Amino acid sequence: MNTTTAPSTRTQVKRSANRGSHDPAVLHAIIDAAWVCHTAFTDEHGVHCIPMACWRLGDYLYIHGSNGSRMVRRLQEQDCCVTITHVDGLVLARSAFNHSMNYRSAVIYGRFETVDEAGKRPALEAFMEHLAPGRQGEVRPGNDKEYAATTVLRIALAEAACKTRSGPPEDDEEDLHLPAWAGVLPLREARGAPVADAGCGIAAPAYVQRWQD
Amino acid sequence: MNTTTAPSTRTQVKRSANRGSHDPAVLHAIIDAAWVCHTAFTDEHGVHCIPMACWRLGDYLYIHGSNGSRMVRRLQEQDCCVTITHVDGLVLARSAFNHSMNYRSAVIYGRFETVDEAGKRPALEAFMEHLAPGRQGEVRPGNDKEYAATTVLRIALAEAACKTRSGPPEDDEEDLHLPAWAGVLPLREARGAPVADAGCGIAAPAYVQRWQD
Repeated sequence: MNTTTAPSTRTQVKRSANRGSHDPAVLHAIIDAAWVCHTAFTDEHGVHCIPMACWRLGDYLYIHGSNGSRMVRRLQEQDCCVTITHVDGLVLARSAFNHSMNYRSAVIYGRFETVDEAGKRPALEAFMEHLAPGRQGEVRPGNDKEYAATTVLRIALAEAACKTRSGPPEDDEEDLHLPAWAGVLPLREARGAPVADAGCGIAAPAYVQRWQD
Repeated sequence: MNTTTAPSTRTQVKRSANRGSHDPAVLHAIIDAAWVCHTAFTDEHGVHCIPMACWRLGDYLYIHGSNGSRMVRRLQEQDCCVTITHVDGLVLARSAFNHSMNYRSAVIYGRFETVDEAGKRPALEAFMEHLAPGRQGEVRPGNDKEYAATTVLRIALAEAACKTRSGPPEDDEEDLHLPAWAGVLPLREARGAPVADAGCGIAAPAYVQRWQD
């Protein structure tokens, strides 16, 4: 366990503590590999968990939404929990109960703050750079009305914990002789062939040409 | 919008309502394509959002955990929100603010119920079948001690909503002439080459041989 930020009551990893980390580099890598986070908050109807597009700039995770949305208003008023999970594989052990998954997850606690007008533009430009590096200069930028209708929120990466598992199954010693295949079935995010919009006669830029893996 | 289950206050889709669905078939497909869900609940420290392995059996979503875990105890006592999200692609429009993502998401509200001792075995066998069809008969089954230490919870798929987006970007009419490439950059989950455990001399069964795509 590589702890560089002291855990709080909420970020102390209790279950399988050997999988826990408070290393900012691990946290940043998990966020940077994500397109969406799950944001949990409460209102008068109970607890909600909503997927939101996200990106990172320095030591903050950013989301954006429509000014009028219930969620944006609630997140400005209360602490919440933001979680990102990547599943990297199924871990097949020789006994049913030792099966597991390989994964990288991050849980962030705190309160979102509203990015002011001056900060909105660089924040949303960083989002575009996260989605498609270099695209910012090619598209029509947001106009004043579009910016005015959009709220950008950010949460400090100050109270956060990561949990990861990688590697082979961990069987009990007495199960190692059993005649069951054991190992890992890997999972990853793959990028498919770009699909140009009907009527798009523009040559694919480098980031589109390079997309498919 | 294909509504076969009447939405509740919590499951009425308000933002981009044309993307909403209450069709059980859509919900089932989103759950069946998932390895994990994000489960939001509260305790005295606030709201939490924790990734959990999940599977479906009929009209219930199942999770399991250690008897002693704080989360298992809290989920038995209160309503929660369970969310699954699949990101299917980045949608590149000709203007910055019309960029979007293609996705399939499901949000389920309600309270988990504890599966009784008689129900645990078939529930966990269904989980194994979800992970690796046919594997159940090959591994050492759980013993009484392992079953006794594990809680299986299920939540009815009665109060749920799905939201999906697919297809090309939706540009404003006046942006269609702009010289920016527009289209979709697809994302999907890919399955890599199985990695046998060191010391595993067992021939790969069919579900391992077929894994890689």
